[in-house]
Parts: sequence; structure tokens; C-alpha cells
Amino acid sequence: MVGKLYGVGLGPGDPELMTLRAHRLISGADVVAYPTLAGGESFARAIAADVIPEGAREIVMDVPMTTAREPAQAAYDTGAAEIAEALEAGRDVVCLCEGDPFFYGSFMYIFARLSERFDVQVVPGVTSVTTCAARAGMPLAARNERLTVLPGPLPEAELRARIEGAESVAIMKVGRHLPKIRTVIDALGFTAQATYVERASLPDEVVCPLAEAPEKAPYFSMILLTKGADPWL
Amino acid sequence: MVGKLYGVGLGPGDPELMTLRAHRLISGADVVAYPTLAGGESFARAIAADVIPEGAREIVMDVPMTTAREPAQAAYDTGAAEIAEALEAGRDVVCLCEGDPFFYGSFMYIFARLSERFDVQVVPGVTSVTTCAARAGMPLAARNERLTVLPGPLPEAELRARIEGAESVAIMKVGRHLPKIRTVIDALGFTAQATYVERASLPDEVVCPLAEAPEKAPYFSMILLTKGADPWL
Repeated sequence: MVGKLYGVGLGPGDPELMTLRAHRLISGADVVAYPTLAGGESFARAIAADVIPEGAREIVMDVPMTTAREPAQAAYDTGAAEIAEALEAGRDVVCLCEGDPFFYGSFMYIFARLSERFDVQVVPGVTSVTTCAARAGMPLAARNERLTVLPGPLPEAELRARIEGAESVAIMKVGRHLPKIRTVIDALGFTAQATYVERASLPDEVVCPLAEAPEKAPYFSMILLTKGADPWL
Repeated sequence: MVGKLYGVGLGPGDPELMTLRAHRLISGADVVAYPTLAGGESFARAIAADVIPEGAREIVMDVPMTTAREPAQAAYDTGAAEIAEALEAGRDVVCLCEGDPFFYGSFMYIFARLSERFDVQVVPGVTSVTTCAARAGMPLAARNERLTVLPGPLPEAELRARIEGAESVAIMKVGRHLPKIRTVIDALGFTAQATYVERASLPDEVVCPLAEAPEKAPYFSMILLTKGADPWL
């Protein structure tokens, strides 16, 4: 009997924002797998820490810190091979993913490598986008409004064009791109409608108007912008 | 002592996709509130049915089926007044929302009416967008990809322009707009990359290529489109 692979979204960081299904699958896991970045701590593992059973085997996929494609691909190749070995030995594997596995999640690299050979179930999770909106008290989209999700690393001109034509906007992965994003939003005259959120749902969360955002933003930070086209309240 | 209002996302429909926090808050609720449409059953209540304590008071906000603004506003006015009365009597109120409260959720109308007078906590939930992606085995966005969320009722020309300039697209609330959306996607040549999902995560879920979608779609249906610009696998 071949095992089953679960790609499990854990939500944005607060362990209580994990789903009942994620909790059940992790509680009963024999093997868990998760990525780390350049030997650092795994955020996904930290969210699930109190739920992972003692004695569960842990497959760690260490992804190097680089923008080059091949070393990261090699890390996922190695991780996928280790997961495949456990599955072939008849063990189920629960792959831990912060947020949602298919929304900027690294699980999609494992999915791409194993979904044709094995039975894979993807368990969606709460994303940072709606968590930031909840924490900021900013409804994202109502009725016929559009929502655009943009990654902060996009080039300035593209960010500008995309924000200009959008209604509600969530800019992910702000981090070191904060000054560039701020310039774009300022130039478009939307700063007063923009909110900055850092580490949403975690104890050290920051929520403030963009104008009061800190100089340095961590990777897990976001800017929400709602132009309020159709509140219909 | 004034009570606290919770706007609680329940996820897309499968009760196991509710968060641990949603489960805890509903389990302990003294008063729950939820909308119904034109006297029909409440989807939100159905998701939470097994968790609502016996004897909890239920505030039902019946929203009339109309595109006119005033009758819906009046229904939310009445609901908000009833909720406010319970809060002022010192009772906490848990407002049930399918999906996420701030992502096309009716809770934002209650929030707009009560957030300045009362302490409100919004609990994010799993959205139908990532659930559909999970069920369809379609990663939504990786690395620097953009995601656009569009409501199906948008006019044909706007849908066309928005889909044309987008990378990954989720079209919500497909329902009776399916023929129009199909025409747009066909004309743009993206039908082969589009997947239709109906009632994601529920027992009667449908997932199929857009080309094989049924003639009639229910309100809770979605089309996902990924142009695969940067899989980086």
C-alpha cells in the first residue's frame, strides 16, 4: 500500500487560525515535511509545533537563499525524492505550508514533482490577505468589486500600472521593496487609503496607516489599498 | 458590560475547513447571527449547524432578493439594531459568514454599521478561491505572479479587458453569467487553461475543464484560469 501525500495550509501564523482538518491531519501524522530557508527556522513548523506528534519523522527541505533557479530546484528535487520514498514505504506524509499551499506556497513545487505518481490531497488554508484585512478592519471586496494581488518584487512601472487600474489591491512580500512601493502609491495619490500590516495574527503584529509604516519591513508584510469604489452600505 | 461582536469566517462549506478559532467561538456562543436570502436557508448556518450550542439565540437577517439598494440596506439596518441590542445587554454575538467575512461577505455591512460603537473582532476564513484551486489541483500564484479576482456579474467588455491583462484569474459568482464568461474566455483563446468548479468542498462538488462545464451554474461556482507565466518549477 502506497501512502498519501497531504499539502496542508496552516494559515497566517496564529495556530488557532489553522483549520480543523489541518489539525486532525497533523495530530495523526507519522511523517511531516516542511521547507526551511538557508538553514533558518521553518515558519510552517513553528505554527504547527504544538500539534506535531512526538516521534513523528520530519523531512526538512532546506532551500538556499538565492534568486538562482537551479539550487532551489535541486532542494525541492531532493525533498520530493525523500517524500516519495516514505510514500512508497506505505507511510502518509503531511507537508506543512504556511498560509495556503497554492497561494504563493512552496508546496506547489512538491505538487509538481509528485502529483502524477501519488495520491495528493491539498487542504486550503486562511491566507495572509484576508487576515490582514481582518486585522486592519478593511473590507477587501464587496458585490462587484475586483481584487488584485500583486507581489512587491514586481518592477516599479508594472506595480504602478497594475495599481492604477485596480480597485482593491493587496501587495504581498513587501519586505525590502517598501520604499519602491511607497513611491508608487504616493505618486498615484493613494497613500491615505493604504494600510501597512506586518506579521498579521502573530503576537508582534503591526497594523498602521502606510504613512506611518516603519522604514524596514520584514518579508511577511503587506500593504492593503482599497479605493472604495462600491461600498454599497 | 457591553458584549463583543465576532465576525467569523466559516470557510467554503465543508465544516472541517472552519478554523479552530471559529469552532471555539461558535461552540461557546450565546447569540449567533446570520443572513438568509429571501427566506431561504442560510448557507452559513448550515456550515456551522453541528457546532451551534442548543439553546443559543439566533438573530436571522433576511435579505430580500433584489438588485435595489434600499431593501437590502433596510434588512441590514434591522439586523444591526437587533445585534446592537444584544451587545448592549452584555451578550457576545457571533456573526456567521460563509468563506471570509471581508471577502465578498455580507458581514461587512454589519461591520460598517457597528464597528464604531462596539468592539468587533473579525476572524478570517478559508476562501472559495484557494479551495477551488486545491480541489482543481491548480496552483494559483507562485513567486512574482499576479492574481486577479473578478466577479462574474461584471460587464462583458470589462471582464474581457481584465482577463486579457491578467496572469492568474479567479472569476467568482459565475451563476447565470456562465455563458457570457465562456464567450469572453473563448474569444481570448484561454478555454484550455480554464477550470470550472461548483460548490467546492461540498459533497456535490463539481470540478471539470471549462469546456465541459454544465449549461447552468449555481451561484456558488467559479472559473479559475492560469496562464502559467512563471511556474519556475
